[in-house]
Amino acid sequence: MRLDDFDRLDAEDPLRALRDAFDLPPDTVYLDGNSLGALPRHVRARIDRLLTEEWGRDLIASWNRHGWIDLPQRVGDRIGRLVGAAPGQVTCADSVSVNVFKLLATALALRPDRQVILTEEGDFPTDSYVAEGLAGLLGTARCRVRAAPRADLQSALDDEVAVLLLTQVNFRDGSRHDVADLTATAQARGALTLWDLSHSAGAMPLELDRWNVDMAVGCGYKYLNGGPGAPAFLYLAERHHAAASQPLSGWMGHRRAFDFTPAYEPAAGISRFLCGTPGILGMVALDAALDVFDRVTLDQLRARSVALTDTFMTAVDALALPGLSLVTPREAERRGSQVSLAHAEAYGITQALIEQRVIVDFRAPDIIRFGFSPFYNRYADAGRAAAALEDVLRTGAYRDPRFAQRNKVT
Amino acid sequence: MRLDDFDRLDAEDPLRALRDAFDLPPDTVYLDGNSLGALPRHVRARIDRLLTEEWGRDLIASWNRHGWIDLPQRVGDRIGRLVGAAPGQVTCADSVSVNVFKLLATALALRPDRQVILTEEGDFPTDSYVAEGLAGLLGTARCRVRAAPRADLQSALDDEVAVLLLTQVNFRDGSRHDVADLTATAQARGALTLWDLSHSAGAMPLELDRWNVDMAVGCGYKYLNGGPGAPAFLYLAERHHAAASQPLSGWMGHRRAFDFTPAYEPAAGISRFLCGTPGILGMVALDAALDVFDRVTLDQLRARSVALTDTFMTAVDALALPGLSLVTPREAERRGSQVSLAHAEAYGITQALIEQRVIVDFRAPDIIRFGFSPFYNRYADAGRAAAALEDVLRTGAYRDPRFAQRNKVT
Repeated sequence: MRLDDFDRLDAEDPLRALRDAFDLPPDTVYLDGNSLGALPRHVRARIDRLLTEEWGRDLIASWNRHGWIDLPQRVGDRIGRLVGAAPGQVTCADSVSVNVFKLLATALALRPDRQVILTEEGDFPTDSYVAEGLAGLLGTARCRVRAAPRADLQSALDDEVAVLLLTQVNFRDGSRHDVADLTATAQARGALTLWDLSHSAGAMPLELDRWNVDMAVGCGYKYLNGGPGAPAFLYLAERHHAAASQPLSGWMGHRRAFDFTPAYEPAAGISRFLCGTPGILGMVALDAALDVFDRVTLDQLRARSVALTDTFMTAVDALALPGLSLVTPREAERRGSQVSLAHAEAYGITQALIEQRVIVDFRAPDIIRFGFSPFYNRYADAGRAAAALEDVLRTGAYRDPRFAQRNKVT
Repeated sequence: MRLDDFDRLDAEDPLRALRDAFDLPPDTVYLDGNSLGALPRHVRARIDRLLTEEWGRDLIASWNRHGWIDLPQRVGDRIGRLVGAAPGQVTCADSVSVNVFKLLATALALRPDRQVILTEEGDFPTDSYVAEGLAGLLGTARCRVRAAPRADLQSALDDEVAVLLLTQVNFRDGSRHDVADLTATAQARGALTLWDLSHSAGAMPLELDRWNVDMAVGCGYKYLNGGPGAPAFLYLAERHHAAASQPLSGWMGHRRAFDFTPAYEPAAGISRFLCGTPGILGMVALDAALDVFDRVTLDQLRARSVALTDTFMTAVDALALPGLSLVTPREAERRGSQVSLAHAEAYGITQALIEQRVIVDFRAPDIIRFGFSPFYNRYADAGRAAAALEDVLRTGAYRDPRFAQRNKVT
């Protein structure tokens, strides 16, 4: 395919106008929305109103007048609609890491005769780091972390496993688990499931209720476009609410926070998973960013994501570039919205692509990630990314000595 | 004093221009900066640049290019200068509640043969709620929470106490502890100290290093003016760094977060107290808000705070209003930057004052809080607040039936 052919696909794309809702830098192919989603244009005006009319003018009264106090539940329910959760089961708060801690502690309390947190080797590390942190706090008699290779997960689900902690779409290779299937297996063996949806929420339809998932967390700043370090979300199925307790029992999770009673009494339902005062700037930005989901269904977004990534994979295949291999599964039902390519010189290639204003990222040791947002990426982006990749590999631009020193964030 | 007299004090005040750095609503006496600090004017432009040039244009590259990745340490060190902490001991992250959890767990690990978290009856509840949460997780053999009345704190410091958790300035009555004295006593009995500075940081000089404090937390959205739900800070004295570990071991506290190694290795120093991805909108707003502290010393701010609150207390005393009593200590060295008055009808009085655009707040069961910010409050505010209080009590406006139903946030 020539670059013109990609432009023609864009011209025929009925969803091409979705991109206009976002501010994007000119002359740039941004394929890193799975690290940081782009800025929905209207967020600026919403934040300016927050600063001027809410914080600046109405000040403390804004907690009631502008509904700040309800934001965690309101934004939680909006995200709930994107992940297939009926209202009252999702709240928006803290970071993914903090929320994983809350839910793992909850899971252990719900399974008092089991001690193991089972996770997958090579999953996004913060989840297992936090699991280790909880295990270190509780001691091995009460909590141990076990990591199994993907192929051995089912057999590792023995009667010691309290909770299976998995990322639905792997951050490195973009492969995707069958949530319903693994959830059913885990539950049949007596374990709970905690799914990290950071690389899937907002990019594809999810059905947490229908799949009978117990717990989930996810990220606000990737496919939800909530802005850098946006608050995260957590889901707990309603059937667990009555028995659930969590140790980060800050005042915002209290039944009557503003009574300032000496003893903690958890709020009803999912609100007991709140801890401290929510960061209103970040939460209002995320709330506004979610508006773009009102224009389109998740089925439409997923179809567009599959088409974009298919087009890119086909274009890269056709180039037959030496040393480069596709690590993301080819079948749509086995992957997310990113394409990961492996190469021994992946770091230099990533930097050379970025110099050509094709923004991708590197994941150690050898992965180049091309993250496609179904909202704002185009077929032309797939075409330009493939062409730039060919150029970088053909010219050897990736061997530039400037790329020997890695940045802090890569 | 007549209202003119207060205006004359303002005209003679060499620091009166500090107020011009803030956006404040017209015709309003805002005395709730101890709940939510006012908006420093320049924050709007800084946030707009963050949205437009950083998130919108430079996107993921902003983590390096605009120093997002260093914000927790940079903002932490700026706050460190306000609380008397040498660089490298303060980081900015998460909420006060989450940070209390991290540091209490650290304290118990540093005192493995002790089990008690000692706190004060009537302190801000989130601290004891979180202490309870940790105790519930660990079990009573490893952790118990004990709350003592203020007068009994010293005698309660027995050899079971691992950590003394206290708020320096009480949120309800505005009374202030002698940090150096209680820290020395606690340490002499083998306990660590964790001070919550939410109602003091930014309002008066603090000397954490000189007072030999072990640990501290504080709030970004009160006297630091960082905006609603601004990120909080935590301090750990350098002498504890090597031995300190904390259970919320998310990826941002890892020695090499972007290597994505399977095992958690804590970062050197205070950075190991980071957990998930920091909320950049909130942290940039707080960073910008701190600029106002470059114009003035904390000694100057404290002197102004004492003068404003003295003036207000003297004015209220002179009114001799029936049923109203001062609960804040009169002596400057025993109080913070708020004046608390008790009255059986405190809730209605608070609402009636707010209707007269004197913004104060209610703390159950019977306290009206008048929080004076040394940056933007004026002597005229003290005069108008006293006059409004007289009017509300004389007319009985506080008995309005509309005030029978309390708001969510009061």
